[in-house]
Amino acid sequence: MTKVTGEIRSGAYFDSVVLMQLQKGMLELDGVLDAGVMMGTQANKDVLEQSGLLPNSCRIAVAEDLIIAVKADSVSQASAALKHVDVLLNKRKTITDDQEFRPRSLDMAVRTLPNSQWVIVSVPGRYAAGVAREALGFDKNVFLYSDNVSVEDEVSLKTLAADKGLLVMGPDCGTAVIDGVGLGFANQSQSGSVGIVAASGTGLQALTVTIDNLGSGITHAIGTGGRDLNQQVGGITSRQALDVLNRDTNTKVIILTSKPISSRSAMELMQVLHALEKPVVVNFLGYAPPAYQIDNVFFASTLREAAELAIELCDKLDFSTNIKSDSQKKFASSQRYIRGLFSGGTLAYETLLVLRAFTTGIYSNIPIDESYKLDDHASSHKHTIIDMGEDEFTIGRLHPMIDSDLRLRRFQQEAADPETAVILLDVVLGYGSHSNPAAELAPIISEAKSLARRSGRYLEVVVLVIGTANDPQDVVAQTNILRKAGAHIETNADEAAIYVGNIISGLNTTSKASLRPVVLDSSGQSLAAINVGLESFYESLIRQGAEAIHVDWQPPAQGKDNLMDLLAKMKS
Amino acid sequence: MTKVTGEIRSGAYFDSVVLMQLQKGMLELDGVLDAGVMMGTQANKDVLEQSGLLPNSCRIAVAEDLIIAVKADSVSQASAALKHVDVLLNKRKTITDDQEFRPRSLDMAVRTLPNSQWVIVSVPGRYAAGVAREALGFDKNVFLYSDNVSVEDEVSLKTLAADKGLLVMGPDCGTAVIDGVGLGFANQSQSGSVGIVAASGTGLQALTVTIDNLGSGITHAIGTGGRDLNQQVGGITSRQALDVLNRDTNTKVIILTSKPISSRSAMELMQVLHALEKPVVVNFLGYAPPAYQIDNVFFASTLREAAELAIELCDKLDFSTNIKSDSQKKFASSQRYIRGLFSGGTLAYETLLVLRAFTTGIYSNIPIDESYKLDDHASSHKHTIIDMGEDEFTIGRLHPMIDSDLRLRRFQQEAADPETAVILLDVVLGYGSHSNPAAELAPIISEAKSLARRSGRYLEVVVLVIGTANDPQDVVAQTNILRKAGAHIETNADEAAIYVGNIISGLNTTSKASLRPVVLDSSGQSLAAINVGLESFYESLIRQGAEAIHVDWQPPAQGKDNLMDLLAKMKS
Repeated sequence: MTKVTGEIRSGAYFDSVVLMQLQKGMLELDGVLDAGVMMGTQANKDVLEQSGLLPNSCRIAVAEDLIIAVKADSVSQASAALKHVDVLLNKRKTITDDQEFRPRSLDMAVRTLPNSQWVIVSVPGRYAAGVAREALGFDKNVFLYSDNVSVEDEVSLKTLAADKGLLVMGPDCGTAVIDGVGLGFANQSQSGSVGIVAASGTGLQALTVTIDNLGSGITHAIGTGGRDLNQQVGGITSRQALDVLNRDTNTKVIILTSKPISSRSAMELMQVLHALEKPVVVNFLGYAPPAYQIDNVFFASTLREAAELAIELCDKLDFSTNIKSDSQKKFASSQRYIRGLFSGGTLAYETLLVLRAFTTGIYSNIPIDESYKLDDHASSHKHTIIDMGEDEFTIGRLHPMIDSDLRLRRFQQEAADPETAVILLDVVLGYGSHSNPAAELAPIISEAKSLARRSGRYLEVVVLVIGTANDPQDVVAQTNILRKAGAHIETNADEAAIYVGNIISGLNTTSKASLRPVVLDSSGQSLAAINVGLESFYESLIRQGAEAIHVDWQPPAQGKDNLMDLLAKMKS
Repeated sequence: MTKVTGEIRSGAYFDSVVLMQLQKGMLELDGVLDAGVMMGTQANKDVLEQSGLLPNSCRIAVAEDLIIAVKADSVSQASAALKHVDVLLNKRKTITDDQEFRPRSLDMAVRTLPNSQWVIVSVPGRYAAGVAREALGFDKNVFLYSDNVSVEDEVSLKTLAADKGLLVMGPDCGTAVIDGVGLGFANQSQSGSVGIVAASGTGLQALTVTIDNLGSGITHAIGTGGRDLNQQVGGITSRQALDVLNRDTNTKVIILTSKPISSRSAMELMQVLHALEKPVVVNFLGYAPPAYQIDNVFFASTLREAAELAIELCDKLDFSTNIKSDSQKKFASSQRYIRGLFSGGTLAYETLLVLRAFTTGIYSNIPIDESYKLDDHASSHKHTIIDMGEDEFTIGRLHPMIDSDLRLRRFQQEAADPETAVILLDVVLGYGSHSNPAAELAPIISEAKSLARRSGRYLEVVVLVIGTANDPQDVVAQTNILRKAGAHIETNADEAAIYVGNIISGLNTTSKASLRPVVLDSSGQSLAAINVGLESFYESLIRQGAEAIHVDWQPPAQGKDNLMDLLAKMKS
């Protein structure tokens, strides 16, 4: 009959790699059928119970206790296995044994390696924020591998770091490469001209590997943690990281990759990206790109495409940008919004899609997001794009491509609104359409523009003309009439949207306080790090030739919560 | 005091362009402040009422009646305006007056222009299906401009057409270009090598215009109507159109554009696109592309990009395709599914995204669509992709990049399932990861493959290896071990997904009955069309030099429903 037995070791903390090795060692012993070596959290006790590895004697274990449980063919073999635990633990020869001095506190480690710029934190989640906060107190950047750190702690750590010009990568940041040195899980890649910011761990690894396999290399690859771009955190680390790479002279092109992202976060990030001086390749998983290229921002659908495109752009730094809008136009302070009056539904929809890169919250009768459905199709609200070919506008009348009446009246209504900055119209020429739309539109455009001028405003009118040289209306003549009336002419919906997008983005910038610059490579000094947690991360640093020290960390106050609180109060 | 008066003309049908001209004519008369000329549908009566243009005398009008209403400064001016209606109607000189013979039925028109291949239908919606059905009875293709045609009518018309090898474009099809002749709203574009299929009207126009502006041209541009790709209609016209362009020797590249589309429809269409012999550029509005290129299918975010890419591909017909999977492998009939066991969350998610191009319904613990959330993360269901780095797999154990145990067991479980055709794994090398994952995996792969062989199955094992030449594990050695064990190796998630996508697509093809080929250009004969509805469409055909005849159409039985039913019965 098989026998399950086990023991609890109170206050004995080992990292999880050590525990895995111990468990594997026990499985090799005579008669041992199964073994479990875990810290005594409730989740772990559940796992052991499900495997039939939780003897009654171990049920009382708490999170700070180590449970060692074994299932064997006989009582004697089980007992023998348990007695062998210390032999196995002592046999274990780790690389940290070579470290001359093993500090037991971060304080001591900092004094031992004062030139360290980084603290790598991989202790269990409930201790991690405390260690990270302590590291920031010593003016160190933090690589926070630990998960199960609350979002409140994340916000407070990142805010503190940003104030000090320091980075907090994570929590749950699996990987990063700084100055060629991998932190956490990381691949050994060549140095080169691509900088990476990633809210995804294996995404970052796959990018560095693909770039390396293609013969190129990276400057820094900065992880942010999966929640950094959420509304609560507001992308603090991402924005710092982009700023670092924007200032870094070795970085020619930046890649930004992220797990699925909200459209609001994507838009806010796009405003940051537009302000950079370098090309940025974006890979937001599952995000429908507004276009292939918007100014300096390029969109890639997969990680491989992002890597390939970034390398291509490194060699092509004179990449053509879309025309930047003239920011010298004298808009009044009341003027903030675009009003789009379309006859073509697809042109309206493509405009909505592209404008996602510049703003959220465009109201429409055909919105991308139903929460921006216009209450009343007859009156605009903030940014508004209307498809006037929809039923609500065409009942009892012809399509606006033939009958302009309603659209001309709506134009005048929008032009009179002091909040309107830009009116965007499409004019679709060709057989079947109005025979001379420019003649109807031009006087109304001129009049609206001079009315605005007399009221101290500047009204931008953009007309998207869809027509060929051989269309019956004569596209050149139509265009000239409209241009003479003061309209800016575009011939493709995406380019028109980018043009107006730049205008409204300029009129609606909520300038976030600029971040204190983070310095990653202080005067050419190479990376030095203090490791708190998994020994294997220390080992990786040493193997890469980095300076590092491992802290022989133990849960504070043996992990007892009330004692921890007391200690924290005494320190503060 | 202003006066509103009006009159009803029973059974007098005019097309809407004529009514607009009449209304404009009345507005120019002395003292007339506003005028409304509309057929007496409820919607139109509502519009007139809202404009204060519905006198009591006109409230009884029915859909078949013409309402003429006028608001004037005085009673006498209003009456004078009404009396002027016939003068205005008679003054109207249309191009159809030049047509020697004006047939009053489709039957007569067909006898007059027997070589006509097309019937253009733009009569009011409730009559349109009847006219279209009649046209199909005469073996004519139908361009169905009318909207307000029920989806049931659409399905029945398109099914009938498909049986006969005919096309029904529409309903609500605004535009098409066949053999250089524009139907409906259309631009005059050069002939060239790009064929277009569009479920969007202005989308199609914008594409033809951009291609023309870039100096290239089109073969045919085929409209399908906005509902064609819905589940109910099943893309009958789209599939016929793609087949036409695939067979057309002048068409080198195909563009497919569509309004927002369901993921199920997108996938079904992708299977059709993959089967084509030509490159296809896809622009699904607001759809996150699975990749830039999947075999012969390319994705563009905007209409302009689609046009530019198509032109580029015309000159580059040796475009590199992704590797097609070897279809000779001897899978058993039970083997249908992919099982993906990932340690990297982002790699799993990118795989899910790319596989959307090959199948729907991939179950996962991190699904794109929550309705495919795996009930039990411990057992797979049909196609399944699992991220084993998620909490449910890592509580009480290390990340699968370090500790392979759970994944190896799951591998054996999947391999034993007779429904499994492909197992896809990632192996992420680098610092921090398992020091020799291939050594653990290889024997299990070999064993699973030979077990499958002995059971008369073929098990495909694909390993996505993420590692650089300088990683501590030696990527070349790792790869060789895995390859020797019988694994197919990939190094990028998107390419791995395309590789397995092609396999599972081959194993799960539900071959739809092939369509009877549609012939658009019958032995070089140029386009000839019968127009039923808006006179302006007839006019456009004549101006383009096409042969055309206009039917002097009137609602059957003066639009009375019971009489229409009776007539239909008498004809059948």
